[in-house]
Amino acid sequence: MADWLAALDRRAELRARAGLTRTLRPRAAGDAVVDLAGNDYLGLATHPEVTAAAARALSGYGLGATGSRLVRGSTDAHHALEDTLADWLGTDRALVFSSGYLANLAAVRGVVGPRTLLVSDAHNHASLIDGCRISGAETVVTPHADVDAVAAALAAAPGRPAVVVTESVFSVDGDLAPLAALHAVARRHGALLLVDDAHALGVTGPAGAGAVAAAGLSGEPDVVVTATLSKALGGAGGVVAGPAEFVRHLVETGRTFIFDTALPPAVAAGVAAAARLARAGDDLRAELADRAALAVRRLDAAALTVSAPDAAVVSVTAPSPEAATAWAADCRDRGVAVGCFRPPSTPDSRSRLRLTISAGVARADYERALDVIVACAPVSARSEPGLRAPQSRTEVAL
Amino acid sequence: MADWLAALDRRAELRARAGLTRTLRPRAAGDAVVDLAGNDYLGLATHPEVTAAAARALSGYGLGATGSRLVRGSTDAHHALEDTLADWLGTDRALVFSSGYLANLAAVRGVVGPRTLLVSDAHNHASLIDGCRISGAETVVTPHADVDAVAAALAAAPGRPAVVVTESVFSVDGDLAPLAALHAVARRHGALLLVDDAHALGVTGPAGAGAVAAAGLSGEPDVVVTATLSKALGGAGGVVAGPAEFVRHLVETGRTFIFDTALPPAVAAGVAAAARLARAGDDLRAELADRAALAVRRLDAAALTVSAPDAAVVSVTAPSPEAATAWAADCRDRGVAVGCFRPPSTPDSRSRLRLTISAGVARADYERALDVIVACAPVSARSEPGLRAPQSRTEVAL
Ligand SMILES: Cc1ncc(COP(=O)(O)O)c(C=O)c1O
Ligand SMILES: Cc1ncc(COP(=O)(O)O)c(C=O)c1O
Repeated sequence: MADWLAALDRRAELRARAGLTRTLRPRAAGDAVVDLAGNDYLGLATHPEVTAAAARALSGYGLGATGSRLVRGSTDAHHALEDTLADWLGTDRALVFSSGYLANLAAVRGVVGPRTLLVSDAHNHASLIDGCRISGAETVVTPHADVDAVAAALAAAPGRPAVVVTESVFSVDGDLAPLAALHAVARRHGALLLVDDAHALGVTGPAGAGAVAAAGLSGEPDVVVTATLSKALGGAGGVVAGPAEFVRHLVETGRTFIFDTALPPAVAAGVAAAARLARAGDDLRAELADRAALAVRRLDAAALTVSAPDAAVVSVTAPSPEAATAWAADCRDRGVAVGCFRPPSTPDSRSRLRLTISAGVARADYERALDVIVACAPVSARSEPGLRAPQSRTEVAL
Repeated sequence: MADWLAALDRRAELRARAGLTRTLRPRAAGDAVVDLAGNDYLGLATHPEVTAAAARALSGYGLGATGSRLVRGSTDAHHALEDTLADWLGTDRALVFSSGYLANLAAVRGVVGPRTLLVSDAHNHASLIDGCRISGAETVVTPHADVDAVAAALAAAPGRPAVVVTESVFSVDGDLAPLAALHAVARRHGALLLVDDAHALGVTGPAGAGAVAAAGLSGEPDVVVTATLSKALGGAGGVVAGPAEFVRHLVETGRTFIFDTALPPAVAAGVAAAARLARAGDDLRAELADRAALAVRRLDAAALTVSAPDAAVVSVTAPSPEAATAWAADCRDRGVAVGCFRPPSTPDSRSRLRLTISAGVARADYERALDVIVACAPVSARSEPGLRAPQSRTEVAL
């Protein structure tokens, strides 16, 4: 038992030596930092209509939902949100969870039957990977965004039920999965397609309905969409959207739905307000696209290795975990928050800064923040202009 | 693929025939129902100090935390809450999660090393069971509250790291685990004890610090405590409390901590206010104990089979799933919400009503609600007075 704590200390020491220590840094309300690290893509977390809707529900319902959805936790606010999301996403029905993480666990488990094969992209989010693990189903991890590999995995299991599992806009590098091609392959093999649209909802697609909608796959009977309500919608919670039969299945058998306290009603009400604003936010999305293009031009011109963003996530390669940490710290000292992603939070062995673009940041602050990132870049982060190192495809055991 | 939906329909049909259909029933703000189903044990969800603290943080921070705890999601509200909880529970440190479910997944995974044996109580909550599963560790399920069986399981694995995993107050039947005896056995074998104190925090123990504190185990280096912030604290979120080394381990490696958006700051602030009220709430706890005793007297006198409650959860046996559903529906028609627990949400094969006692319900309403429950009881639920059927110990695959 003393062994136990000593062993934890030794592991912490090893992480420290590898430059992989992680530290919590609390922020104060309304801090003056220019935020290129959070996921509040449309700036809706602080939108007055959003906080007003939440405040109304807070005084109407109180703080918590006081129970699981099937006991006392379902309120009119949850059901209104579900109707809003289903309508926006163009699916039969939508089911709200207390987090995107728990939504993904339920969705993956929910599509798995006795002999199901899961085909999971190598860059998938931890919650999808955990969903595959906890489902107990055989899982083939295919190289990132590799449609041929997915087709081969499906072809190797003829007659078996199968599900292709992918993010749409990948959370670390911000690239978009080839959704239409994946769907075509899945359908050819009678497989389902499960897409985590977390970083696309509100950011891409017609009226911001996400990357599944953009690929023309809304409402297809062999497609299940999940998302978190904590990014472009500025709140918290998760959603699974798809055929009514599937949603019913989750209501009646989904462990992370049944045995979990419902999202606070105030959060549900705030997110519903955010969804309405996001749906009408084509101007905000145009601004995001413009800023993403600007980031690429500016960082590329400084000879940094920058990803080609398909939404509002931009990844900039760092030479090492230590260099990434120092780079992010220098930016922070100059008033700019950027994400610092190191193993095991990166899908390959490479560290990077992750910049997220938010329409809630003033344009001038955003442009200044790009200057700060360039000014703080370690010399070793600069390559010959235009020369991009290919991403390694090695999966890291998360 | 059409197969898929048809298969889901067939399974729904089978559940319906077995009386196991589950239906979401939204409630309106401030509905007039007398609530004996929710988990707001101290009535704090609607306490003005709690909602005021949440409202202040909502206008200060906005709705969502906008990122994971290690990126932009940690606010002063989260850190203040963690300090408050660690101080109250008497542990080194406390770490807040977005739900109790995700806290349990992290805690169980976090205590598991290469050769760890998990010894898990047969009545444990779904989130603990999922934690055992996803950890990949060998898991022995011991009969409910059976200290000898735990000792035997540990003795059968000499020299292996082991962790005893249990709830304190069990969520369905409301009985208390033999924590002191479990700890003694665990320590004798050099094993850890992991306790989910969800239904005890705020309800039992010195100053409401929970069942672990009541057993004199606060701050022991071989004890890890988890809880949800959604029951007596009236909010949402989860906590893991224990040695600083372990909390650091979770911060740096806990997947459901690292890859999940932080609890909304407004919820953290509201829960912190609730924790202060709960700590000072000895009068509320006395009222709960009195009401629990009253429930037993009243239901027992009506020849119903009622559990001996150790906290604020009372279980009343129903003759069948259909009878439980009808009984709960009759109560609801008469303005009383009760929990209706049927397989697979019960740890044995038996259905029951689950009554939760809340100090937030007016005393007169509570007493009337007990009358309604008795009046609506199916004849077949009545046994000879005083005669209690033993609970079956069969684990149900959840
Ligand atoms: C792609 C992706 N899926 C799921 C999640 C989990 O959602 P939540 O934070 O609501 O648990 C996240 C991030 O948090 C994510 O980036
Ligand atoms: C014993 C127990 N543990 C954990 C949980 C999960 O907590 P949460 O609802 O915050 O996810 C619950 C209930 O919800 C519970 O009853």
